[in-house]
Amino acid sequence: MIQLDFAKSKDGLLPAIVQDYLSGDVLMLAYINQESWEKTLQTGKAHFWSRSRHMLWLKGETSGHVQLIREVLVDCDQDTVVFKVDQLGGAACHKGYGSCFYRRVTDDSLTIIGEKVFDPSAVYGKK
Amino acid sequence: MIQLDFAKSKDGLLPAIVQDYLSGDVLMLAYINQESWEKTLQTGKAHFWSRSRHMLWLKGETSGHVQLIREVLVDCDQDTVVFKVDQLGGAACHKGYGSCFYRRVTDDSLTIIGEKVFDPSAVYGKK
Repeated sequence: MIQLDFAKSKDGLLPAIVQDYLSGDVLMLAYINQESWEKTLQTGKAHFWSRSRHMLWLKGETSGHVQLIREVLVDCDQDTVVFKVDQLGGAACHKGYGSCFYRRVTDDSLTIIGEKVFDPSAVYGKK
Repeated sequence: MIQLDFAKSKDGLLPAIVQDYLSGDVLMLAYINQESWEKTLQTGKAHFWSRSRHMLWLKGETSGHVQLIREVLVDCDQDTVVFKVDQLGGAACHKGYGSCFYRRVTDDSLTIIGEKVFDPSAVYGKK
């Protein structure tokens, strides 16, 4: 198993950039610990550490929008990775957009440039 | 000025993903604080917070490999950004590769897939 430099961060978490393996769009960024790194490599499905729920997080567990790993890249310092994925359901963002980065900075405001793929309340239930 | 949620992290730093605006390649990830965020938007050149040198960092200050901002994307939680850039000199990585993510996980090893653009000792001097 490739070793990452988890000691680099105080909380043992490193950023994982998720990129669509075909379009190259950056879909999201989440954090991994040793366990989620191992689970991702072992299962071929992106796993993270949920900082809000404090638990291992299989992306798509609730929505079904699992990310199938196509390629994993490691940076020069071994403290950041890129997961190139096949995004099932076509949407990575819990707000229903294909990418979490669906807004562009235009002067002093944010312009929506992403497309809404699903209705969050239909997928996650009303909150 | 667009506000990011710097309070989200204990150290006031948020990750900035740098992506080549033409190829879509992820070039690097670095961290921004409020000051580097403002400097980036004001100057159109990527600025970060250097965690090793504890100071504002204009990327390319030493190497000349400045990153000209073409587009800035903000994620759903306003705690991560993407800088789409024109990478001067063709290389983002201090090790001389075009991208810091020049290695791919292949079974239990790392395979170099990136191309070396410059010799680090020639650019930064011998260390």
